[in-house]
Amino acid sequence: MEEGIPGPAARIRVRYAETDAMGVAYHANALVWFEAGRTEFCRSKGLPYREWEKAGVFLPVVEARCRYKHPARYDDLLDVLVDLLELGPYTVTFFYRIVRSGDGRLIAEGETKHGFCDRNGKLVKAPEPFFGWLQKIIGQSRKEGVVQVG
Amino acid sequence: MEEGIPGPAARIRVRYAETDAMGVAYHANALVWFEAGRTEFCRSKGLPYREWEKAGVFLPVVEARCRYKHPARYDDLLDVLVDLLELGPYTVTFFYRIVRSGDGRLIAEGETKHGFCDRNGKLVKAPEPFFGWLQKIIGQSRKEGVVQVG
Amino acid sequence: MEEGIPGPAARIRVRYAETDAMGVAYHANALVWFEAGRTEFCRSKGLPYREWEKAGVFLPVVEARCRYKHPARYDDLLDVLVDLLELGPYTVTFFYRIVRSGDGRLIAEGETKHGFCDRNGKLVKAPEPFFGWLQKIIGQSRKEGVVQVG
Amino acid sequence: MEEGIPGPAARIRVRYAETDAMGVAYHANALVWFEAGRTEFCRSKGLPYREWEKAGVFLPVVEARCRYKHPARYDDLLDVLVDLLELGPYTVTFFYRIVRSGDGRLIAEGETKHGFCDRNGKLVKAPEPFFGWLQKIIGQSRKEGVVQVG
Repeated sequence: MEEGIPGPAARIRVRYAETDAMGVAYHANALVWFEAGRTEFCRSKGLPYREWEKAGVFLPVVEARCRYKHPARYDDLLDVLVDLLELGPYTVTFFYRIVRSGDGRLIAEGETKHGFCDRNGKLVKAPEPFFGWLQKIIGQSRKEGVVQVG
Repeated sequence: MEEGIPGPAARIRVRYAETDAMGVAYHANALVWFEAGRTEFCRSKGLPYREWEKAGVFLPVVEARCRYKHPARYDDLLDVLVDLLELGPYTVTFFYRIVRSGDGRLIAEGETKHGFCDRNGKLVKAPEPFFGWLQKIIGQSRKEGVVQVG
Repeated sequence: MEEGIPGPAARIRVRYAETDAMGVAYHANALVWFEAGRTEFCRSKGLPYREWEKAGVFLPVVEARCRYKHPARYDDLLDVLVDLLELGPYTVTFFYRIVRSGDGRLIAEGETKHGFCDRNGKLVKAPEPFFGWLQKIIGQSRKEGVVQVG
Repeated sequence: MEEGIPGPAARIRVRYAETDAMGVAYHANALVWFEAGRTEFCRSKGLPYREWEKAGVFLPVVEARCRYKHPARYDDLLDVLVDLLELGPYTVTFFYRIVRSGDGRLIAEGETKHGFCDRNGKLVKAPEPFFGWLQKIIGQSRKEGVVQVG
């Protein structure tokens, strides 16, 4: 397993639907797997994203980056490791590593930056208790020294 | 061009994202292409589906069928031919033929049945002016003898 | 849990990517979830589909049907129950039930029919040991009376 | 229409399948639309990507970035504007702007970096005539001053 991000993982089984004519997983799926990881990260930390939207807080992606290291193939089992990278009053950035389960081979890594929005899609200051919750998590990660990007 | 359904067509360029490890378009995309055809069909007949939803009328799929005749490949140009097949007080069924542009080779054909629903997802009797509009279209198709399924 | 198909299940967490503007899972994803179920079915019975392709046997979908019973939403946990329905010398048909984990609510059910093909996409007679393996499974299902479609 | 990249455009009609529960297009689709734009860019410049793969040259994505400026919605008509940004012996980088057709509103912009690979997925020096063809295009773009990123 990858060092540096011991955090929660979503486990992904690569679907045939996700492969392309090169015989490997199509690159855009990495962003979908990031999302699956983010969902499990929030749940594991105690505040499922479903609850955010119920409370009227939405987190659309404003920027996404991904670096592809090794192709994933049909039926591969992948772990999506997630951590918080940055938190501002209006945005939050997550960091991801996708590793192949078993041998820990790095498949891809990247970041997504999200804005805090209300029901109308308007950018707003991160409301409580969500902001405080994120602050606490990012504090823990820094203390454990697990935020190691680059 | 395919005989039988002279109706409006959506033109689709097969994306790399839509291919799979067999080197052909993944089968579930046919349902997405049906939707693209349905959208152009409604627009060409004068009542874009976007207007339906603005008026509070939603058309979720309650049944879908597809028969695959010939694989489509990356960069193929496809025409999605659409017609109305059946209309009831609570449901409407569309019929589709996907043909390869140029040589008219039949790629797939199928049907989708939709329920009329309100904003809360509750099945309702098809409201006017939508029901009358659909009735008029299905009447025209029958007169022209273009509904030839099987 | 749904009666009738006690068979192996793939567990699916509905992704945000799989939802649409109606706030529910987009219908074409059911075919993708069927595929995920089929993959786990073959693995659980001892012959992972990955092995089929390594041996030069491909199973493209020649017909797909789905009946939608209840919408699935973001973050719902779903079970895809799978069984063999029909086996012929050139084709095999799988049957699926997608139920919501926990309360067993039926989300969708359907069938996919597959042709046996070689590396060039040519339809061929189902080769051994694959045909015998499928025959054995379908025999077991009938004995247990679990094939209950309709 | 957006200034700066007068280059070829793929025209995209946003599909219902591409929307999500926020009522807007799901962010990962931007990478798919980039791909559609890249396909039309190569075709318009005289060397369709389909020809590259026939010649044994593959261009997997090694890095992707996207900045989201304004949400796209179901049935929006979008133009994907594409240009070459960088060319090296082993990699080539494309730049994209997605604008809403009609009012030219910027939806998203980003870059994808691709490695030149052989049939086995091994990174290779960009072979001729592909390298020379890319060099010529990037030279034209610079002369016209159309490469304006940032």
